[in-house]
Amino acid sequence: MKNITTKEAAERLLSYDNVAVLMHKSPDGDTIGCAYALCMALRKLGKKAQPFCSDAVSHKMYSYILDDFENQEFDIEHIVSVDIADTQLLGSKLEIFKDKVELCIDHHGSNIGFAEAGVVVPSAAACAEIVKCVIEDMGVEIDSRIADAIFTGLTTDTGCFKYVSVTPATMRIAADMIEKGANSGMINRIMFDTKSRERIEAERLALDSMKFYFDNRIAVVFITKKLLEISGVEESETDGIASIPRQIEGVLAGITIREKDNGICRVSLRTVEGVDASKICSVFGGGGHKAAAGCSIEGTVEQAESKVVKAAQSVIEESL
Amino acid sequence: MKNITTKEAAERLLSYDNVAVLMHKSPDGDTIGCAYALCMALRKLGKKAQPFCSDAVSHKMYSYILDDFENQEFDIEHIVSVDIADTQLLGSKLEIFKDKVELCIDHHGSNIGFAEAGVVVPSAAACAEIVKCVIEDMGVEIDSRIADAIFTGLTTDTGCFKYVSVTPATMRIAADMIEKGANSGMINRIMFDTKSRERIEAERLALDSMKFYFDNRIAVVFITKKLLEISGVEESETDGIASIPRQIEGVLAGITIREKDNGICRVSLRTVEGVDASKICSVFGGGGHKAAAGCSIEGTVEQAESKVVKAAQSVIEESL
Repeated sequence: MKNITTKEAAERLLSYDNVAVLMHKSPDGDTIGCAYALCMALRKLGKKAQPFCSDAVSHKMYSYILDDFENQEFDIEHIVSVDIADTQLLGSKLEIFKDKVELCIDHHGSNIGFAEAGVVVPSAAACAEIVKCVIEDMGVEIDSRIADAIFTGLTTDTGCFKYVSVTPATMRIAADMIEKGANSGMINRIMFDTKSRERIEAERLALDSMKFYFDNRIAVVFITKKLLEISGVEESETDGIASIPRQIEGVLAGITIREKDNGICRVSLRTVEGVDASKICSVFGGGGHKAAAGCSIEGTVEQAESKVVKAAQSVIEESL
Repeated sequence: MKNITTKEAAERLLSYDNVAVLMHKSPDGDTIGCAYALCMALRKLGKKAQPFCSDAVSHKMYSYILDDFENQEFDIEHIVSVDIADTQLLGSKLEIFKDKVELCIDHHGSNIGFAEAGVVVPSAAACAEIVKCVIEDMGVEIDSRIADAIFTGLTTDTGCFKYVSVTPATMRIAADMIEKGANSGMINRIMFDTKSRERIEAERLALDSMKFYFDNRIAVVFITKKLLEISGVEESETDGIASIPRQIEGVLAGITIREKDNGICRVSLRTVEGVDASKICSVFGGGGHKAAAGCSIEGTVEQAESKVVKAAQSVIEESL
């Protein structure tokens, strides 16, 4: 992959028409915001452009982006990807494009370089930071709808500007987007201040199941099939629950165990600084980052719990 | 009170020495961040300055501000207040200063004008935005410790930049503070990503007690004395629980009922746009803002619930 600047990416895009912009599967606010913002910008230049995703984009959450966006049909001439580090993330429907991406815009240091050319900026807290620069480099004036889409990417990928990944640039681009008319209060409300009644019920049940080990330094919650059934929650809505055990004061490793099919449990680890989550998960063939990692363990949730708690305790003991 | 600019406030402060900077009672991150930032800045100019508060500042939460800050003793010559809208908020220990405040720095539109001179900017999302300008107008270079204190004010008064009150200026000042060395990730972690085990337990019990009325448009949680006793949580730590019922999708009015002494219940209302919380509370002699209000009702939590649910339903019916 040829590494290019946002200016060079803008030049390429200016020469394109009939553009497909690909999002990653299980789309989040960043890939969605980037794809729609870029398509809106290309359309303002009189070009045809359409976002594509293997999975559905939630209308309930993103209606303020989707509602005034007309779908366009055309013969695709150029293919661009946003916020995609690896072709595996294209998902089943878009897999056919895996060797055909001409321009990749991304902020993952782990980007495998699958495209012809790419602007990959790992210091960006959200891919939307880069897309904003590309749009400006194309000479397109950012209107309130593009600003909404860019702001969505910024806020969702940073936990509402909470994470350590946030830089002065992130905050300044967010300021610019609010100035251009982004409805920041409404967007943050939808993303961070709205839970379904089922999700609240799932949270209650998960808290009910919380257990502590190793002098309260390890906290474990279960998300069992029964919990999903009783609460009626969509599994995708339970993502945020994994952050709860580690939030508890004194907890060094927060563990979430999800009961999956075929006697497999999916384990999520969240740790505080100094305790390597990926090291704990590597015991079971998993991996990830120092503060957040995952692995799969065969057996019941109780069996998985006993194994992962033991591994976590030994890694904590080493690091104390 | 004479309304002055940040520049004029800076000029006054430059002419002062031996300055007491007053915080409001039940101090939050904004009043604390402002008071310490301002004292640090005055000290950099060789002046003596000390923050004062009627209540204790939590060392557990604010150790990164307090730890390197030496207390100074001196005969107070000048009195400044930060983030204080009304002398009633001085609290019992600082009440003696109520007619003696020379300079008031605040962002509350409801400021009663108790000081000799004041710079009151209601458009500022946090008082820390104004203090930052005053410090710069004094010609003091903001170092990483002042930046930590200012950032604390910004993030705590905006729910981590989530509220509608956030403006481009808020975001840009936050960017500047990160650039000056504010440990934003750590501060956000302490403020928004750390809960005591007791608080988690209180949340679980509050969720257990949640009830829905009027086709799930009204949600009620109880914070009873028994809940405090069973969970062992400090009452001050339960503030955040009041935001939970309104977060639930479809809920127009979220009600939190706290059992207090002498058969009195303290009721907190949070509503969505279009439903006036202060109107509901005014039925019981309370008040507040359109989206958040409070009142006191005599009786058991169940009696208070029945009364306030009825009032909420009638206000919702009017607004549908």
